[in-house]
Amino acid sequence: MTLDATLAQIDADQPAALERLLALLRIPSISTDPAFASHCDLAADWLVADLGSIGVSAQKHTTPGHPMVVGHVEGPADGSGPHVLFYGHYDVQPVDPLTLWDRDPFDPEVQQTPNGPVIRGRGAADDKGQLMTFVEACRAWKAVHGEMPCRITFFFEGEEESGSPSLVPFMKENADLLRADVALICDTGLFESRVPSIITQLRGLLGEEIHLTGPDKDLHSGMYGGAAMNPIRVLTRILGNLHDDQGRIQVPDFYDGVPELTPEVAAQWEGLDFDHATFLGDVGLASPAGEQDRNALEMIWSRPTAEINGIIGGYTGDGFKTVLPSKASAKVSFRLVGQQDPHAIRENFRAWVKAQVPADVDVSFAPHGASPASQMSTAHPAFEACRGALGVEWGFDAAFTGCGGSIPVAGYFQSILGLESMLVGWGKDDDQIHSPNEKYDLESFHKGIRSWARILDAIR
Amino acid sequence: MTLDATLAQIDADQPAALERLLALLRIPSISTDPAFASHCDLAADWLVADLGSIGVSAQKHTTPGHPMVVGHVEGPADGSGPHVLFYGHYDVQPVDPLTLWDRDPFDPEVQQTPNGPVIRGRGAADDKGQLMTFVEACRAWKAVHGEMPCRITFFFEGEEESGSPSLVPFMKENADLLRADVALICDTGLFESRVPSIITQLRGLLGEEIHLTGPDKDLHSGMYGGAAMNPIRVLTRILGNLHDDQGRIQVPDFYDGVPELTPEVAAQWEGLDFDHATFLGDVGLASPAGEQDRNALEMIWSRPTAEINGIIGGYTGDGFKTVLPSKASAKVSFRLVGQQDPHAIRENFRAWVKAQVPADVDVSFAPHGASPASQMSTAHPAFEACRGALGVEWGFDAAFTGCGGSIPVAGYFQSILGLESMLVGWGKDDDQIHSPNEKYDLESFHKGIRSWARILDAIR
Repeated sequence: MTLDATLAQIDADQPAALERLLALLRIPSISTDPAFASHCDLAADWLVADLGSIGVSAQKHTTPGHPMVVGHVEGPADGSGPHVLFYGHYDVQPVDPLTLWDRDPFDPEVQQTPNGPVIRGRGAADDKGQLMTFVEACRAWKAVHGEMPCRITFFFEGEEESGSPSLVPFMKENADLLRADVALICDTGLFESRVPSIITQLRGLLGEEIHLTGPDKDLHSGMYGGAAMNPIRVLTRILGNLHDDQGRIQVPDFYDGVPELTPEVAAQWEGLDFDHATFLGDVGLASPAGEQDRNALEMIWSRPTAEINGIIGGYTGDGFKTVLPSKASAKVSFRLVGQQDPHAIRENFRAWVKAQVPADVDVSFAPHGASPASQMSTAHPAFEACRGALGVEWGFDAAFTGCGGSIPVAGYFQSILGLESMLVGWGKDDDQIHSPNEKYDLESFHKGIRSWARILDAIR
Repeated sequence: MTLDATLAQIDADQPAALERLLALLRIPSISTDPAFASHCDLAADWLVADLGSIGVSAQKHTTPGHPMVVGHVEGPADGSGPHVLFYGHYDVQPVDPLTLWDRDPFDPEVQQTPNGPVIRGRGAADDKGQLMTFVEACRAWKAVHGEMPCRITFFFEGEEESGSPSLVPFMKENADLLRADVALICDTGLFESRVPSIITQLRGLLGEEIHLTGPDKDLHSGMYGGAAMNPIRVLTRILGNLHDDQGRIQVPDFYDGVPELTPEVAAQWEGLDFDHATFLGDVGLASPAGEQDRNALEMIWSRPTAEINGIIGGYTGDGFKTVLPSKASAKVSFRLVGQQDPHAIRENFRAWVKAQVPADVDVSFAPHGASPASQMSTAHPAFEACRGALGVEWGFDAAFTGCGGSIPVAGYFQSILGLESMLVGWGKDDDQIHSPNEKYDLESFHKGIRSWARILDAIR
């Protein structure tokens, strides 16, 4: 049997594949809201049944949160090919504000747009549509070949959008169930909506919350203004020092463990011909705001950041109030790269803040997560095989790229299962994931399924 | 008739005077909230009726906002004595957060405390209790003498806590109704809660709101963090530069028109023996935070300030969100002294901010009031007469002091009516005006009434 036969089967089965995806999208599996717990359960059941329909022996595993779905299927009888672990998540983001949606987020449909047809609905791109591209590729392969291309373990999570509280315990307790040769994760996108990319480096994330207290109550700025220290003044002073004029982060030893790009990666990124004017222009900006001696792609993929995600203090309603507030606070996060140690940076950041807080002001901190960056080894032959396969389908050479975000599961596969992850996906920049009117291009869905068939053919 | 008879009448009438004040305090006349407009009207009606009960011919005057109450009463038949204009305000601050109140703010009662009995309730000190001290003094005088000590015009405003939008137009249109020889304003306090003080200099106030917009929508800090300019970063940088290390304000030409104290005033203030450790210690602070070459009394009375009254941007709820926000904003106010020009400072501040905003960030401003400082001439004989009278009642020599706050009405009396204002009041530092659990010491109420009787006796 040839790959072409599988691709033809995929094309022929498109209408049915779409119906299956729409059925899954109709289940409002919002993981963060307890009111939708039964729907998460339903989505897991749906997946167990759907995997069963292509000969995968799958089970729903209960956790303290939403269930995990794990399924196994053997490859060719001769045992050839690698054993792959495929990961996706069936839960979705909340949909509020509902008024900004053009239609019921859980009544999905295909809509025609100037850029082609799209599947509109919550979870279409993140991540139900993506995970189904892999399932549909397996279905077509099985239909044509009567067997799977290799041994496959399916692993679907239902808590990705709510911090994955059960993920690490489940992986540790069920490591034997999940062991494989390489992991495939489909929860990312095309580079600039057109170039297939295999993400090989992910930034880590460290979150900190600072609380400052000056006077022990809110004061009248007429009575105390001038003599009493205002915690907003202290907070703005400190955070205003977070970056220097060149955009470098001022926390001591912050850049320890930040690597330079290898010449190979630098050359590949150069070849991507990234257009920062368009990237920033799409959100109303023009100038890359990070370290001024770095290019924009480095800023978002390979350089660490410090970002003030929120700040509040004093009177923030309509009008004016001459209050000299007791408290001010901010949320700050750091995207980490290379060998940066989140715990050391947390300590250094806190010490740096404390050193700038006057004696009259109390400071306290609250931690919000600390995960290091991850870097995939691309030594497994699947990586190069995958690159080749993707170029054929999309008409652009696939690239090993970075990702500014943090996908912790890839790190867990590395640390708990000793598995490298190949992160590929078919999302586009305008998919509006996590936002109203989420969509997934029909092209992403169709060519995504075809891409997986090519990848499976290449790596088996 | 002697002053003693009036004081005795005041003492005897205390229970009834207290009941009248409690009745006024039960009216929730919150001026800033339109939902309470009818209650403001009710408070004005109550005052008209109460003035009527002591022979004052009073009327409610409608305005585009809440009504003004103006009442007139003649003095002795021989026309002796000055014509005084007495000002107070019947509106009160909002009460939120209600959960921090120990009882319903509009169900006032007398409570025993370690420092003596207090009247607890919104408006007890600011300003219903204070304005009633004058009314009660007049009532007692009338009861004893059968006439008032001098010609008196009563002027009660209902918008003081919401920026007094109707005050200037009303005063201009009704200047003839309000004309007098000297104004008495009862909306201030004792110096250090014990020394009677006549405030002769008031700081001005300039309010500004800054709005910064970076990206045209909230962004994901994983995708854009590093490359996209964060408006909170820009805002903290600018506001962190508002003061230098020595506490001096960095807006260009800000100190133009700031006078040094005259030797006479400096000597009087020196004599007040102000204890900054207690003043700051009462609110949990220790070190004067203003210009490091000035003492704390100068910082709050005679030096200008820049205060960040509020700041907000990004995600400020529970937990963490890795948002790179589109917007950030802050409210900043300046207390002004001497000849500082609020309009020039507004322009200089805006230019100074704009110069620090990068090209990618939009800035806009909203003005919130601009009043210059005011300085009373103490040439009118009422000033010295009042000083003498107060010393007897309180056991401390009264002082001409400054006031860090801004009482714009005193400036308007000067500029519109050509009237000097004598600002005296009986509030204490711990009255918690504008805050939950506002109170007014029974001592302030009782001795305040007696003080007005002494003042009226001294100036008639």
